[in-house]
Amino acid sequence: MKLTILGCHSATPRTNAHPTAQFLEMAGRNFLIDCGEGTQMQLRKYKLRFTKINHVFISHLHGDHFYGLIGFLSTLGILGRKTDLHLYGPKGLNEIILLQLKLTSSYNEYHIVFHELTSKTSELIFEDKKVQVFTIPLKHRIYTNGYLFKEKIGDRKLDINAVAKFDEIDICDYQNLKNGKDYVLEDGTVVKNELLTKAPNTPKSYAFCSDTEYIESIVPIIQDVTMLYHESTFLENEAALAKKTKHSTALEAGKIAQLANTKMLILGHYSSRYKDLKRFQQEAEKAFDNVVLGQEGTSYEM
Amino acid sequence: MKLTILGCHSATPRTNAHPTAQFLEMAGRNFLIDCGEGTQMQLRKYKLRFTKINHVFISHLHGDHFYGLIGFLSTLGILGRKTDLHLYGPKGLNEIILLQLKLTSSYNEYHIVFHELTSKTSELIFEDKKVQVFTIPLKHRIYTNGYLFKEKIGDRKLDINAVAKFDEIDICDYQNLKNGKDYVLEDGTVVKNELLTKAPNTPKSYAFCSDTEYIESIVPIIQDVTMLYHESTFLENEAALAKKTKHSTALEAGKIAQLANTKMLILGHYSSRYKDLKRFQQEAEKAFDNVVLGQEGTSYEM
Repeated sequence: MKLTILGCHSATPRTNAHPTAQFLEMAGRNFLIDCGEGTQMQLRKYKLRFTKINHVFISHLHGDHFYGLIGFLSTLGILGRKTDLHLYGPKGLNEIILLQLKLTSSYNEYHIVFHELTSKTSELIFEDKKVQVFTIPLKHRIYTNGYLFKEKIGDRKLDINAVAKFDEIDICDYQNLKNGKDYVLEDGTVVKNELLTKAPNTPKSYAFCSDTEYIESIVPIIQDVTMLYHESTFLENEAALAKKTKHSTALEAGKIAQLANTKMLILGHYSSRYKDLKRFQQEAEKAFDNVVLGQEGTSYEM
Repeated sequence: MKLTILGCHSATPRTNAHPTAQFLEMAGRNFLIDCGEGTQMQLRKYKLRFTKINHVFISHLHGDHFYGLIGFLSTLGILGRKTDLHLYGPKGLNEIILLQLKLTSSYNEYHIVFHELTSKTSELIFEDKKVQVFTIPLKHRIYTNGYLFKEKIGDRKLDINAVAKFDEIDICDYQNLKNGKDYVLEDGTVVKNELLTKAPNTPKSYAFCSDTEYIESIVPIIQDVTMLYHESTFLENEAALAKKTKHSTALEAGKIAQLANTKMLILGHYSSRYKDLKRFQQEAEKAFDNVVLGQEGTSYEM
């Protein structure tokens, strides 16, 4: 699992500071999470393959989270994409995209499959053989979802040395063993699966939580997540403003990380009023140990 | 008059190559011309004041010319703008902007005054004491206008040494002299204005022509323009593609510059297929002498 931060600042632009966008690689899939203005340039800059993205998740309809989407989608068309692209986001997003595609007379050879979200409870919105994606209902000024990406438990892993002791076991039997089945020898003896295989890799997970006020109701949804991104627009000195604008402070992000028992907390969505970002880390560390400052162009691998 | 190029590449994004946007300073006014994705970051990068822009001109509804507009307008709101902003562009643009402002629940304290353009002949769309702006109907795949910015002829300039010879002439008379009036001495003698003033500065003008196929019908509109920007998406080796996509080659841009008798031609809107931009200049120079390659972040002053 590898997460690359393409932008981690809040709405007011600064030189060389991009709004929210993240690129997540998980079990061979590539997910784009939020798509602030300039995301397509950032994807190029950090040499991430546009064409490999089949699923885009938009948290909410504030401009700093989706104004780069129409440009990204148009460029996919220009590049000759033919594969379906799945787009998850709040009701209204498809109206914005379709109107612009119509008025720009865009002809795309690929199909955009819209998944409009309206639920206020967590729901499974994507599933394939290896990954599941759930919404994380957040509390912001408008309808907002975070997203939880979970690897499924993989196959058990063959213990080749153990298997080699039994001449009878053929390559054709391997998948049954990986699936957890015991092996029955010709003489009727049952060899327990645990003797022939090892436990599968622990599935990894990533929770993206932006934008939101502090809400503990998300903790059961993201419990034990491997890696957590939680917005931290403000420091405690602006706690009142955080409350008013329905954002979180770095300390609050730390508290959620601690309650959720994550391995690692990534901060972001910094307000442009702060020059010294180190202070975000210091505040979050009052509540949680393993905090990193989300930074544009940085990747985190687990 | 000073023009700053914020972006000069065509639609397909490359690292560090922005789509069309220009910032024009003329007679104390600041105009934004086209607004491709990332324009607001470019304005910051080149330290051009957002807040001084009161008029935005969009040539046509292809994404590489306006996808940065909604972000720019939203940021003006966040920055607390209160002054009206005038927006000139094709029919449909206001629908796109208003839908997004509605669905993002944006509250702006300033008013956007939409000027929807539909005319197929050149028209005066803006005029104040010092500047006029006319449309330049272009021929592209969708409805497109270039824009001609013209300084008005200013006041005549006092010849202070000449004026000083006449004790009778008071400061209160100066504006009449600047307006071109003769001066009548107390004894009835008429002093011709030309003896007391010098000719005003030659008014400058700038024509922005993007995107378009080669059309000589624009020449009378832009005749004798001080500075001309003309798109040059392709070189002559792709003349067929230029024709098909209704774009121009660098040579064609040079021909228009020569016919229009401009002082200076600026090229831009380069297709991403070309690595060596010098070739655009070389081709245009076959038809016109004073060609410069439009480059991001470069300013041209007249």
